[in-house]
Amino acid sequence: MERKRVRLTVAYDGTRYHGWQFQNNGITIEGELNRCLSALLQEKTEVIGASRTDAGVHAMGNIAVFDTSSRIPAEKISYALNQMLPEDIRIQRSQEVPNDWHPRKCKSRKTYEYRIYRAEFPMPIKRLYSYFTYHQLDENRMREAAAYLVGEHDFKSFCQVNAQVESTVRTLYMVQVEEQGAEIVIRICGSGFLYNMVRIIAGTLLEVGQGKREPESLAAVLEAKDRSAAGPTAPARGLTLVKYEFEEEMEKRSV
Amino acid sequence: MERKRVRLTVAYDGTRYHGWQFQNNGITIEGELNRCLSALLQEKTEVIGASRTDAGVHAMGNIAVFDTSSRIPAEKISYALNQMLPEDIRIQRSQEVPNDWHPRKCKSRKTYEYRIYRAEFPMPIKRLYSYFTYHQLDENRMREAAAYLVGEHDFKSFCQVNAQVESTVRTLYMVQVEEQGAEIVIRICGSGFLYNMVRIIAGTLLEVGQGKREPESLAAVLEAKDRSAAGPTAPARGLTLVKYEFEEEMEKRSV
Repeated sequence: MERKRVRLTVAYDGTRYHGWQFQNNGITIEGELNRCLSALLQEKTEVIGASRTDAGVHAMGNIAVFDTSSRIPAEKISYALNQMLPEDIRIQRSQEVPNDWHPRKCKSRKTYEYRIYRAEFPMPIKRLYSYFTYHQLDENRMREAAAYLVGEHDFKSFCQVNAQVESTVRTLYMVQVEEQGAEIVIRICGSGFLYNMVRIIAGTLLEVGQGKREPESLAAVLEAKDRSAAGPTAPARGLTLVKYEFEEEMEKRSV
Repeated sequence: MERKRVRLTVAYDGTRYHGWQFQNNGITIEGELNRCLSALLQEKTEVIGASRTDAGVHAMGNIAVFDTSSRIPAEKISYALNQMLPEDIRIQRSQEVPNDWHPRKCKSRKTYEYRIYRAEFPMPIKRLYSYFTYHQLDENRMREAAAYLVGEHDFKSFCQVNAQVESTVRTLYMVQVEEQGAEIVIRICGSGFLYNMVRIIAGTLLEVGQGKREPESLAAVLEAKDRSAAGPTAPARGLTLVKYEFEEEMEKRSV
């Protein structure tokens, strides 16, 4: 039977989940996808995820692929799968891709948003998708600090210490700090991210915003190549993987 | 013992609640406030709510008052009460008011937002605070229709039939239709609202946006003074009571 590879664009509210990656105890996004796909396609199905987000992190467009012998047209799978998934996971798109296509082997750009709600007291309808702080924050200082991170750098200081990676050099195309009412949104686009990198950047920019650390100190933090030089890891609930783009497709679109 | 009246500004995520008003079966905002206030103040305490929102409706600033003999300063009650309330209810402010002050007997302006998320598939992180539709919506048509509702009108067509009220005449100061990315926000400010009025307005504007009904038809809908002339009642989850202002205080501020 002929097999095809299908790519899914996956959105989820991470609140209830122990992250992306399958675990024997605790529900995960990958576990739910495998369970529902296997039932829908009537064959054991396992997805490969592009970004294995942590517990509590949200996504508007993470990417997964799987192989199947099913005759259901690839682009119809989103509709059928959404009928079976819990309401906090929704497939935004399903499409056929070449059999050797692998999301982690393609050049890509990921955009994350870290959302901060600043006020005297937490706002219930904001609590699941932002980090609350009652500290005064100076967005101009945060913006100034953010500028030091744009470009190709060794982000070792912004990587959880026990992460095993060959190189800690990454490229950030954009680090934006935007005010939206009582919220401050840190928007970061890059070619790749180290473990906890966005949350450590957010934690460090929060310290700059509070006046605990100078914007210019970011140069020394990068230079140190030492996790302890950066700020704390900001909580997961404020983080959303907003967009996952593949360079080959971006080029095609711009032709 | 001297008694004082305290006013609370109350924010909540209505998802889990059977509305504002106390019920014997099912948790309510009022029930949670009474329970936590009674424990905090060590005396049976009952709040009076300004807007008794329906099951599933959210608030950023509803108003409640209660009387107490407690010596805790009124402005400190917010801090103490927030320690005891579930995380989906948060007091934004507590303040002493005159003993005869009653929120429903003051001239006030309430601002509601009805949020619509329009896309091919629902977005999990938007699902709790917006109404999802896959229909195309024309915001310009919605905006045109909204204009018919501004001013003093008999809103009988926009009131749930079994509601018992003396007069169905109300004044709307603003009915705005704003695009925010994939979301459309209907923002309505008025002196008072009939039962389900905002949700029926939203349901009617949705029909206009879909092309099922002409913007100009809103004049006839008002004229009909008949619930069946308007559109359906839009779901509760899209509705948030954003702001509750009292005219006497607005005047003071503008002096």
